[in-house]
Amino acid sequence: MRTQELRHPTGRVLVVVCDDGDEPVTVIGGALRRHELRAGRVTAVGGFREADVGWFDRQAGDYRRIPVREQVEVLSLPGDVAARDGEPALHVHAVLGRADGSTVGGHLLSARVWPTLEVIITEVAPELSKRVDPETGLALIVGSGR
Amino acid sequence: MRTQELRHPTGRVLVVVCDDGDEPVTVIGGALRRHELRAGRVTAVGGFREADVGWFDRQAGDYRRIPVREQVEVLSLPGDVAARDGEPALHVHAVLGRADGSTVGGHLLSARVWPTLEVIITEVAPELSKRVDPETGLALIVGSGR
Amino acid sequence: MRTQELRHPTGRVLVVVCDDGDEPVTVIGGALRRHELRAGRVTAVGGFREADVGWFDRQAGDYRRIPVREQVEVLSLPGDVAARDGEPALHVHAVLGRADGSTVGGHLLSARVWPTLEVIITEVAPELSKRVDPETGLALIVGSGR
Repeated sequence: MRTQELRHPTGRVLVVVCDDGDEPVTVIGGALRRHELRAGRVTAVGGFREADVGWFDRQAGDYRRIPVREQVEVLSLPGDVAARDGEPALHVHAVLGRADGSTVGGHLLSARVWPTLEVIITEVAPELSKRVDPETGLALIVGSGR
Repeated sequence: MRTQELRHPTGRVLVVVCDDGDEPVTVIGGALRRHELRAGRVTAVGGFREADVGWFDRQAGDYRRIPVREQVEVLSLPGDVAARDGEPALHVHAVLGRADGSTVGGHLLSARVWPTLEVIITEVAPELSKRVDPETGLALIVGSGR
Repeated sequence: MRTQELRHPTGRVLVVVCDDGDEPVTVIGGALRRHELRAGRVTAVGGFREADVGWFDRQAGDYRRIPVREQVEVLSLPGDVAARDGEPALHVHAVLGRADGSTVGGHLLSARVWPTLEVIITEVAPELSKRVDPETGLALIVGSGR
């Protein structure tokens, strides 16, 4: 994994390049903490050896795990970063492309990168903050109420 | 629905958080008008109780409605904002993830949010302008011709 | 095809509007070279008459071509731009929506636009650089190693 931090007057841009075998949720989360980036948006392209995505099961109050046990193109990986209890909380969804062009997707739970994942994180300041929603247990962005 | 407007030298960033039951096209459109944001790009993650997406039927000259009557993860919601007759025109497409990880998508016609939809809109200045294309009746961005 | 270049202190934003029949990879690549934009991120919405997307076949060391011979909505077209041998290298993935809402996607190899494709490219400075990965032959972003 390699990162470049680009400092702009309006905030930072963090480029995180995940390599073969990296687990992107861990790698991106580590980069966010290391660079203390607590509010931003995420985009990425690349590929995975395999991945686990999730669909939120309201009854179970947790993500239903959808295993993807094949090499896929990462077609879309949008997400955001917000502070939860002072730590950056990453929320990323994934659309993955199979060898036949069919797609599978969900909330990105975990993955193994191959051959690369090129992640661009743009800081949004001031910080967005997340609070745990009592109904779902999910950390949701808290707006200003305006 | 809650919004945060972040003012940057290069333009504004509008964070719109839609809550349970919100109709995002209406909510985002209202926020754009209220904040007078007429040129920008949109990204979002979250979930829908249900949605209607569309595929543009060239013969009919209108979107063919594709109803999605189940809870889905909003995997990707990219779009742009441009001024049409002085009002912000929102153009958003959606990729939605079902409980089994299969995906469905199209032009976002309408939806009901659950549990949240976290929308980030970045202003692009100067304004982009849209004009109705006579062939399709769609409002398309008009470039400078350079 | 029409473009607007918006100059910001933090970098440029390039708006590229592809018209009926344009081949977007060629058009976007040409705009990047003409505007000498060598590091950025790409998003777009619009539609294609048809497209060819690819899944990277590790054994063959090349993309397996997946032809899409029908009009589709461009649901998501995320990508990045980095310099390869001093020239901008575009890396874009596509999620495409069929008339029934089903999706197909992969690395965007080529397409024909209809009725429009609205592309927004945001410059990320300093330049990102790509180097050919010996294992795959793919041009991958090279980070700073931090």
